[in-house]
Amino acid sequence: MTTEKQVLDRIERARRRAPRVREERVTLSHGAGGKATQTLVEDVFLGAFGNPALEPLDDGAVLRVGTARMVLTTDSFVVSPLFFPGGDIGDLAVNGTVNDLAVSGARPLYLSAGFILEEGFPMDDLRRVTASMSAAARRAGVEVVTGDTKVVQRGKGDGCYITTTGVGVLERPDEFGAAHVRPGDAVLVSGPIGEHGVTVMLARGELDLAADLVSDTAPLDGVVAALLDAVPGGVRMLRDATRGGVATVLNEVARAAELAITVEEAAVPVRPAVIGACELLGIDPLYVACEGRFVALVDGDRAEEALAALRGHPLGEGAALVGRVEGGPAGLVLLKTAFGGTRIADLLVGDPLPRIC
Amino acid sequence: MTTEKQVLDRIERARRRAPRVREERVTLSHGAGGKATQTLVEDVFLGAFGNPALEPLDDGAVLRVGTARMVLTTDSFVVSPLFFPGGDIGDLAVNGTVNDLAVSGARPLYLSAGFILEEGFPMDDLRRVTASMSAAARRAGVEVVTGDTKVVQRGKGDGCYITTTGVGVLERPDEFGAAHVRPGDAVLVSGPIGEHGVTVMLARGELDLAADLVSDTAPLDGVVAALLDAVPGGVRMLRDATRGGVATVLNEVARAAELAITVEEAAVPVRPAVIGACELLGIDPLYVACEGRFVALVDGDRAEEALAALRGHPLGEGAALVGRVEGGPAGLVLLKTAFGGTRIADLLVGDPLPRIC
Repeated sequence: MTTEKQVLDRIERARRRAPRVREERVTLSHGAGGKATQTLVEDVFLGAFGNPALEPLDDGAVLRVGTARMVLTTDSFVVSPLFFPGGDIGDLAVNGTVNDLAVSGARPLYLSAGFILEEGFPMDDLRRVTASMSAAARRAGVEVVTGDTKVVQRGKGDGCYITTTGVGVLERPDEFGAAHVRPGDAVLVSGPIGEHGVTVMLARGELDLAADLVSDTAPLDGVVAALLDAVPGGVRMLRDATRGGVATVLNEVARAAELAITVEEAAVPVRPAVIGACELLGIDPLYVACEGRFVALVDGDRAEEALAALRGHPLGEGAALVGRVEGGPAGLVLLKTAFGGTRIADLLVGDPLPRIC
Repeated sequence: MTTEKQVLDRIERARRRAPRVREERVTLSHGAGGKATQTLVEDVFLGAFGNPALEPLDDGAVLRVGTARMVLTTDSFVVSPLFFPGGDIGDLAVNGTVNDLAVSGARPLYLSAGFILEEGFPMDDLRRVTASMSAAARRAGVEVVTGDTKVVQRGKGDGCYITTTGVGVLERPDEFGAAHVRPGDAVLVSGPIGEHGVTVMLARGELDLAADLVSDTAPLDGVVAALLDAVPGGVRMLRDATRGGVATVLNEVARAAELAITVEEAAVPVRPAVIGACELLGIDPLYVACEGRFVALVDGDRAEEALAALRGHPLGEGAALVGRVEGGPAGLVLLKTAFGGTRIADLLVGDPLPRIC
């Protein structure tokens, strides 16, 4: 006879087993930010490169150069189409990297940019992309200080891919990270979610659907600084909600902190146009990428102060308190639905929205 | 009547005019490291991002973070095939970035890696590439501390592209750069040239030609340190001879320093197999990429010491003194041929060897 305890133990052991990629070939899911990406990173990349700076698998690595504490972060951008309402691959590449620095608590300073261009890519499009990058860099107060360009034959690329790497400096005493999260912490999101992902999907024109939406792509360094200034020592963890959306971020936090997170579905800010498009696409807005929104876990007693600070910044006007950290069940994100039920919001297995960043 | 002086003045004015990309679309030449790349960088990238750290257009940007002086450098790798005798895209990506730091005088510390994978790429190949990267990183004493993975649909990539960004720290008092080069300086190369480019070309199997060659891919930090230790204050400028080969490096130096460089063709070390393959390919070994060789400009009075230091290191055994810096004609590289003639070795216009790095 198998007791419930034995079943639970077996599940727990399976969970803790080192993840192993089972696929023989790379699939789109491996780039989606969900379960397959996590397994790929933990098996292949951590297996090859494991070291103390990489192992937290945060958005950026904290490094020491001389006496300075800095953060290094990198992101490759393969968004399709390259141009969409509210932005393009250029400002996305700058903002994405600036945001990874910002949520690491660093002040963004410098960027590098590696371009992989496809033979035949229109020069005017390249000028448009670099102009967007330049404007985004100016807005975030960073400089593009070095770069590289490679060209691949027609059919071996898709116009333009950009990899940006960012360097920021840690000047604040605040320390964040999963290790600082504890039961009772409040979960905030900085604004309405899912606009970037849905906008890019609609821009592909494959759906017979138009919505009055623009990407939320924006640099988050200012609004993050406003939050940190308002509740010094009260911020436990910050993460921008890109690939895989808010649900994926919360899963990563819950797993890393070995705690549970409960989310009130009705409290999550989502614009009606995003809800409508998601219903037609058959996806949950909680899993749709933003490129200008972040999740903040803050001391539960200071949630109102934190919320007020976010709402006082133009990029946090729509901020909301959406959930709480609980002692358990460890590693799970529980969604309290509008109908009074509770369901688990797990990591996604597939990729409902490929190439949105 | 037009005097010779007027003609020369007109040429000079045309030369100094801000470069302007005339092509409406990106061509393979824009990624080749020669004239088209230079024009693209100066027009499009410098036009968009111009700032004091970027403008020297060196292999790395010198930055200040807190009290530390560091170098940031980035390179995208699109080599085809991914695996070739003597290496693969993985060690190439690590060594290439380590070498850009080394020739900037920095001690390589940290790397980031952005992967753009094509759907269907074999997982075993990815494991092989990451294992090579890991081994190369260990060899160079650097750590891969952060990364990102994106996946593009089948037919929108070519297996695997990698963008590596490196951070190094400047600890030596030496200052290099084009501004330090002066007439009388000696031009050294650290070993036989062109092996990487020819090896990759032959690995494509498009030529009915086999040669007993392996890529020269290697980390140059050790041999560069040996040189700097041997002739402190005597090194004017260092540059690894990648895309476009030694001739392209020398052209960049001659232009930046506004001096001439004369090269004794017979003094340039090239293995017979490289000469043979280059004859069949119709290319000059001076323009073929190396991935483990560098050009050093050193004080002419200390050339012998510098040469001895290079030759004392396993990666500099085949080093040679190949030329001298002269007062003029400014910006030109003059090749003294084995037959006693002199010809100009200009920047290449096209791309004889696409995607060798």
